[in-house]
Amino acid sequence: MQMQLLKERIQKDGLVEDGDILKVDSFLNHQIDISLLEEIGKEFNRQFEGKEVTKILTIEASGIAIACITARYFKVPVVFAKKTKTLNIAGEVYKASVESFTHKNTNTIIVSKKFLKPEDKVLIIDDFLANGKAIIGLSKLVEEAGATLVGAGVVIEKGFQPGGTRIREMGIDLHSLAIVESMDPANGVRFRED
Amino acid sequence: MQMQLLKERIQKDGLVEDGDILKVDSFLNHQIDISLLEEIGKEFNRQFEGKEVTKILTIEASGIAIACITARYFKVPVVFAKKTKTLNIAGEVYKASVESFTHKNTNTIIVSKKFLKPEDKVLIIDDFLANGKAIIGLSKLVEEAGATLVGAGVVIEKGFQPGGTRIREMGIDLHSLAIVESMDPANGVRFRED
Repeated sequence: MQMQLLKERIQKDGLVEDGDILKVDSFLNHQIDISLLEEIGKEFNRQFEGKEVTKILTIEASGIAIACITARYFKVPVVFAKKTKTLNIAGEVYKASVESFTHKNTNTIIVSKKFLKPEDKVLIIDDFLANGKAIIGLSKLVEEAGATLVGAGVVIEKGFQPGGTRIREMGIDLHSLAIVESMDPANGVRFRED
Repeated sequence: MQMQLLKERIQKDGLVEDGDILKVDSFLNHQIDISLLEEIGKEFNRQFEGKEVTKILTIEASGIAIACITARYFKVPVVFAKKTKTLNIAGEVYKASVESFTHKNTNTIIVSKKFLKPEDKVLIIDDFLANGKAIIGLSKLVEEAGATLVGAGVVIEKGFQPGGTRIREMGIDLHSLAIVESMDPANGVRFRED
């Protein structure tokens, strides 16, 4: 279910730019409104209520803030996957490839094997969902570790891009707090109906 | 003043490796112990009590978690400087150069001019202080913006490297929650006496 407070904030302070760019850098991923993040964290906690979560997994850099504030409500540690250009990494990491929509490049993401264990029940948290590559990459790390993927929570899903459909079809329990159905610089953002 | 709980955690879970590396990736900068971060945030809030802070400034990626949890106690937004390899960035950012001790490279760090204003009273927060380049770079962004630098809070200062002295000599009100006086793989960490 979408989150009214967040949708209002996106309408008020989000900037739609050419090339399907939605800039939310005044409150989400450059300057960060911590009180909004607290409401987002509470909402993820409500939406995944009853699921046993032992760890929150995200990806640097812009997922870290949301994951950490959210983790307060779940009372579990955060692990963030690191991006690296180095393809040959010795031994003790899980790794996956991730293409970035925003940056038009490919990174290898890694997590130390010490911090994902078969007994972990992992919730993935990220700021944006566009083509889904980041979440799919993170879910591969969870799989490689033999851990259980509880679900994925994203703050803003670009519903007009294929990531959401792809991830739901994979059977991942995906919760997006705002789903943008369409947007353009002249008319701004229209959200999907709940 | 140093923080006992943090020093004990570093003794228990920190790993000293050759090349003056102190790995705290099990609780601070890969896997993150949110309840420890809450105590760190409270401690920064205590140590900067009475100072008016309007914004917390940090640098991606590993500063973000600490800055965000700390910002809860100050009830102010976080701004994180982004690292970029691009030297020619058009117009609307403040920028500074930062050498990384850990990664042995130089980055340009940038902050949008929209998020640092002359009326801001800025507290810089970071995880590590070694040669001081990150904090000096961040302080240049504050200066460029014409904002006021209230001080800097770091979680772990490597007291045997020159950053702490340099920053204190610049007149910056620096608070380090743990100051490592010396360390080596055989004997671990020894902290500076308060």
